[in-house]
Amino acid sequence: MPRKVCVVVTARPSYSRIRTALEAIRAHPDLELQLVVAASALLDRYGNAVNVIAEEGFDIDRQVYMILEGENLVTSAKSTGLGIAELATVFDNLKPDMVVTVADRFETMATAIAASYMNLPLVHVQGGEVTGSIDEKVRHAITKLADVHLVSCAPARERVIKMGERPERVFVTGCPSIDLAREAVAAEPRDITDTLSGYGGVGADVDLGEGYIVVLQHPVTTEYENAAEHARKTLRAVHEGRWPTLWFWPNVDAGSDGTSSAIRHYRETNALRQIHFYKNLRPMDFLSILLNSRGIVGNSSVAIRECAYLGVPAVNIGSRQQGRDRGRNVRDVAYDSDAISKAIAAMFDQDERPQDMIYGDGSAGRQIADTLAVCDLSIEKMLTY
Amino acid sequence: MPRKVCVVVTARPSYSRIRTALEAIRAHPDLELQLVVAASALLDRYGNAVNVIAEEGFDIDRQVYMILEGENLVTSAKSTGLGIAELATVFDNLKPDMVVTVADRFETMATAIAASYMNLPLVHVQGGEVTGSIDEKVRHAITKLADVHLVSCAPARERVIKMGERPERVFVTGCPSIDLAREAVAAEPRDITDTLSGYGGVGADVDLGEGYIVVLQHPVTTEYENAAEHARKTLRAVHEGRWPTLWFWPNVDAGSDGTSSAIRHYRETNALRQIHFYKNLRPMDFLSILLNSRGIVGNSSVAIRECAYLGVPAVNIGSRQQGRDRGRNVRDVAYDSDAISKAIAAMFDQDERPQDMIYGDGSAGRQIADTLAVCDLSIEKMLTY
Amino acid sequence: MPRKVCVVVTARPSYSRIRTALEAIRAHPDLELQLVVAASALLDRYGNAVNVIAEEGFDIDRQVYMILEGENLVTSAKSTGLGIAELATVFDNLKPDMVVTVADRFETMATAIAASYMNLPLVHVQGGEVTGSIDEKVRHAITKLADVHLVSCAPARERVIKMGERPERVFVTGCPSIDLAREAVAAEPRDITDTLSGYGGVGADVDLGEGYIVVLQHPVTTEYENAAEHARKTLRAVHEGRWPTLWFWPNVDAGSDGTSSAIRHYRETNALRQIHFYKNLRPMDFLSILLNSRGIVGNSSVAIRECAYLGVPAVNIGSRQQGRDRGRNVRDVAYDSDAISKAIAAMFDQDERPQDMIYGDGSAGRQIADTLAVCDLSIEKMLTY
Amino acid sequence: MPRKVCVVVTARPSYSRIRTALEAIRAHPDLELQLVVAASALLDRYGNAVNVIAEEGFDIDRQVYMILEGENLVTSAKSTGLGIAELATVFDNLKPDMVVTVADRFETMATAIAASYMNLPLVHVQGGEVTGSIDEKVRHAITKLADVHLVSCAPARERVIKMGERPERVFVTGCPSIDLAREAVAAEPRDITDTLSGYGGVGADVDLGEGYIVVLQHPVTTEYENAAEHARKTLRAVHEGRWPTLWFWPNVDAGSDGTSSAIRHYRETNALRQIHFYKNLRPMDFLSILLNSRGIVGNSSVAIRECAYLGVPAVNIGSRQQGRDRGRNVRDVAYDSDAISKAIAAMFDQDERPQDMIYGDGSAGRQIADTLAVCDLSIEKMLTY
Repeated sequence: MPRKVCVVVTARPSYSRIRTALEAIRAHPDLELQLVVAASALLDRYGNAVNVIAEEGFDIDRQVYMILEGENLVTSAKSTGLGIAELATVFDNLKPDMVVTVADRFETMATAIAASYMNLPLVHVQGGEVTGSIDEKVRHAITKLADVHLVSCAPARERVIKMGERPERVFVTGCPSIDLAREAVAAEPRDITDTLSGYGGVGADVDLGEGYIVVLQHPVTTEYENAAEHARKTLRAVHEGRWPTLWFWPNVDAGSDGTSSAIRHYRETNALRQIHFYKNLRPMDFLSILLNSRGIVGNSSVAIRECAYLGVPAVNIGSRQQGRDRGRNVRDVAYDSDAISKAIAAMFDQDERPQDMIYGDGSAGRQIADTLAVCDLSIEKMLTY
Repeated sequence: MPRKVCVVVTARPSYSRIRTALEAIRAHPDLELQLVVAASALLDRYGNAVNVIAEEGFDIDRQVYMILEGENLVTSAKSTGLGIAELATVFDNLKPDMVVTVADRFETMATAIAASYMNLPLVHVQGGEVTGSIDEKVRHAITKLADVHLVSCAPARERVIKMGERPERVFVTGCPSIDLAREAVAAEPRDITDTLSGYGGVGADVDLGEGYIVVLQHPVTTEYENAAEHARKTLRAVHEGRWPTLWFWPNVDAGSDGTSSAIRHYRETNALRQIHFYKNLRPMDFLSILLNSRGIVGNSSVAIRECAYLGVPAVNIGSRQQGRDRGRNVRDVAYDSDAISKAIAAMFDQDERPQDMIYGDGSAGRQIADTLAVCDLSIEKMLTY
Repeated sequence: MPRKVCVVVTARPSYSRIRTALEAIRAHPDLELQLVVAASALLDRYGNAVNVIAEEGFDIDRQVYMILEGENLVTSAKSTGLGIAELATVFDNLKPDMVVTVADRFETMATAIAASYMNLPLVHVQGGEVTGSIDEKVRHAITKLADVHLVSCAPARERVIKMGERPERVFVTGCPSIDLAREAVAAEPRDITDTLSGYGGVGADVDLGEGYIVVLQHPVTTEYENAAEHARKTLRAVHEGRWPTLWFWPNVDAGSDGTSSAIRHYRETNALRQIHFYKNLRPMDFLSILLNSRGIVGNSSVAIRECAYLGVPAVNIGSRQQGRDRGRNVRDVAYDSDAISKAIAAMFDQDERPQDMIYGDGSAGRQIADTLAVCDLSIEKMLTY
Repeated sequence: MPRKVCVVVTARPSYSRIRTALEAIRAHPDLELQLVVAASALLDRYGNAVNVIAEEGFDIDRQVYMILEGENLVTSAKSTGLGIAELATVFDNLKPDMVVTVADRFETMATAIAASYMNLPLVHVQGGEVTGSIDEKVRHAITKLADVHLVSCAPARERVIKMGERPERVFVTGCPSIDLAREAVAAEPRDITDTLSGYGGVGADVDLGEGYIVVLQHPVTTEYENAAEHARKTLRAVHEGRWPTLWFWPNVDAGSDGTSSAIRHYRETNALRQIHFYKNLRPMDFLSILLNSRGIVGNSSVAIRECAYLGVPAVNIGSRQQGRDRGRNVRDVAYDSDAISKAIAAMFDQDERPQDMIYGDGSAGRQIADTLAVCDLSIEKMLTY
């Protein structure tokens, strides 16, 4: 009997980050994939990841709406609560042998609690990393609920073990997002305009011929009242610098409404002749666009992780990625239009593209599936110090 | 402005364990108590703690039903989810300056998530301890969500710090349950029959004159399919040994239905002439009965904690208290009627009553209030290794 | 493509009342049955109907825990709310062509709202009847949400139409519970002791040879504070009359805890030598026991409906069945031990067994399936007066 | 002791429609107002009614987030379920003597079920009306749950009684929205530009000097897949007709995302020089703007109700207001750009402003409060036919 592996995907970026593992699980003779798509992965405003998942050929076993409107801290908590109630029913009906939760978004806690409370072995992908904001608390709390840890890098493994987890349950598999980065590097070069056609988006018709930058900036939950202000700083820098820019909307989080409003308002009061806005791209398309860009700006973890492997330069703004292990591609700056502006200018003109394999060598999906097929699944654990 | 301290009490034993802190918070000039009573603390089947709380003079700011019927692992998860959704609304309306959650019952996670997700400083009482079962996961996960840690003993403090928490946010206050134990020791001796009168209960009229034992046995969530079997082992030992016995019903948890059914069934198929069953006693009454007993049998943490201070001998059965620091009063045995029987016999005849102050000196309530009045309440943290 | 008919079964008695329709739907070439088992149908305390359903060969597509502990009016409301949230997910995943809800228990409203809000045609079985208590409000509110009405009798049809429903959407199919009654009449006579063996139960060993009575008494939700008192009146009458008695526990409702406690308490303070208590019987076993009894006592609708067809005499106590069309088999009495006693005595000695086909001729299951296979499923409606 | 009247306000338009009743309840010596603000009334995207309520001097006893993201039929159902669970807790804590629910939005059912299931007398404002879509089902289902009916007009009273409600519990008070209309007529004339200043909005700077129209178009839930198409029809008519236009965003409902996207998309692909878009106005400001306009276009009930009293001409599009009693001010048209265009043209040039008091004479708030102070509050009812 193959082991039934239930993976809960709750957001567009989580899907990108786990996709090659999903493929490897589905293909593995000793594993059976059960795929649950939930939370913002079902929502149009956040890129309707569920459509992408279906288009890429995955069977979706269950879909669960669980995000409350309001995009504030109250609704983040409530969404997580509702998610637990619903995912418990899903697991009770699907009867998986283990449950996989990805990274550290607030709603991944719903998966973690439903599974661990039901005595289902919980597998946590991407524990042991260090960042700012509520993600930090969520990530390490999930580590303490999880039975199997599949981490991106050796320092993450060390941290998970220091928190009291048994070394034999912590595996360095690398991050599956790097697998996509490797595919992107290996793929045929494509014309950017072709890649972007069909996505629509709004804003100016931007000439990408002389180089362009990519922006992806999320609200920071512990600073969410400043989300609009932070978005404006970046907007001003990008607008005034007149770099051809592809700007991507943030995903659902307390404060993203602030971010979104700021963008909308800025756009309506300024003629942004160099910026085109997009909602969501297929992961491979996004990577291809990154690879061809002069660099990425914002606070996305993509800049730290995938771009380390790809060698794409990054301007990382503010506290969101604080503490994360990073490669030589990153320039850190504060929420300051001038500083952002100068860093982008330097990045735009930079020629070197140093690659670092901090988050894996591109075989994480296969390693994850192989580990899940054989690992010990006992759910008892106890602090050893 | 006094700091508003919101304490969520979710069960009868949690109330006992936090009561002196509630009193000290209410009395403190720099603190204002907000009291939320929820979960099994509202349920008749589990002793209706809400009535005791009201009788003892506390104003209850909110009451929240959140426990689903079924007493299995699915419903534990769902109850926690519902609790998060509802407590988020409660916190959004009460606007506390900090939230206190007690120990490690499954539903305390609801308090922890609602508070930490809403950027409310989370105070965790009794982290850093080590036990078996799901409580272990819950306790340490809450540690990783909490901002202030009020622990029972120095080894617990060490463990919390090793998990990556900042030493300056971890305070050894002792456990408030020991405060009650100190009060119980200091109180006028009372006649046991008087203490018990009014509680009713069911079962035989037991002669307590020549000594008696107290039994309190909970289902273990990770072994919940065996709850009935475990209950029967103890029942048989106690029944056949013919010790005069006061038996207390377990609290709500996956499997307590198994425990309850086993007790009911055993009672209906055996004439239990030496056992009287009770649902719930006021904490001070319970301690007084313990003090006057020959010892306690089962797997309650009371046997390990309060009884260490009281010097009351204990027979601790099975895995539930595994790993907890314990005093000289404890005899550990497996789920085995013979072993249980022998240990009770030895305990019944024992004269020494060695006292150990492992879990505090009886001033925890005051220390907790004093700490909350002045401690740093910042909510940002990051792993330091 | 067969029409996908999703039926939500939420309680033991609802299952009995819909079983032959489930069989007929499953067997119909133009229909496909989707079976959801939820609420108290999953709970051990209420007879674990889910096990009976599985044993009788039905595939269960989803099971959903949704009942909160407390058995009071607050938790009835909350359970319904949770049920809506969860059933919406179930319907979103099962994608039925219509949804069937049965009768008028509080939680059937969850099915009705989830379905009607999702533009799924809602079929209501057993609308248009008249009774006391909250059921009355629930039943007629569901009528106003429903698109197709399958009623038990002509007067019910008239009432549904008077409430403003279109005559062409209201069908008299009879009540499927009568189908079982017909089967029970047609079945080989069985020995009562054989029928009861295996069910266990608690209480006295009752000699059934000289005739016996059946008691089934539910709490009345709008009088739920009196549930215990009402139960005691009946207990006293039955106890003092010394009729051999088979007593069945009530199903989940606000106040059933009162009923249950009253029974437990009475049992522990009185030697009930003539009463045996049971939790749940298979429907056919229950009908067989009714057929062989001297009559039924309490406030169950079985006494009014099935027993009209069977000709089994009934003593109907209090307000719960007020307003329901009834046959010649019923004696109505108030909550009064003397009156109950006298009515039972008369019933016990009665020889006539007049049969009335008020609630159908025993072909309701087939008629329901046939109707669902062809009926108009449009969801638009508007008051015509 | 004054009667505690708990009113649950769930949306911007519901607030406008109940405001004078809130004032009258608050001012009444025999009544005490408990105000709960919930659902889209808390959301920025739908005009943040909670801020308006607070600014107008009401104390808010509780606020409850309950709307799920997705704006589809699944999430409407789930939001209602969550609302029931939360409102039950609110009522359990506030202990009102009666609960008031307003009209027929999907989430008003949450109030109705929580209250009626908890045996709290339920007062329904604006039952007995006739419209298209799911509102029709919701409105009449609430009538069957409600104990006291406060209706807008005599025909509504007749319908409620025909559905089986007791005549002595159905009161014609008029609709409180007409009270505001009366205030608006009585108020000092104001300059439109002053009234609009401070609301911001987006879009063209429109010259209102030569007359203007107001547009307010909601998605129709039973046709929600066409919401975008319907919005475009109106947009095209308004755009091509070049009438100076003030356009207001729709409120939260399945499909409003479609409406919103259609508007955004149309706006981005067409230069709309004559249209300014607004989110939310204070009720009196909105009425003042209506009074000064050439007429209203769309499918809002404001066009049918308030505008009948005001004598403001209306072009009513599509099925949403089908069945509602209407005055001489209304022109009905289908979803057809040409028809809409012609009707607006006729309306723009019309001089007569016939007033009809169909929905009240402007004293509804006071009449409602007076009725609630003395009406019978028994919760038992039974169909009388």
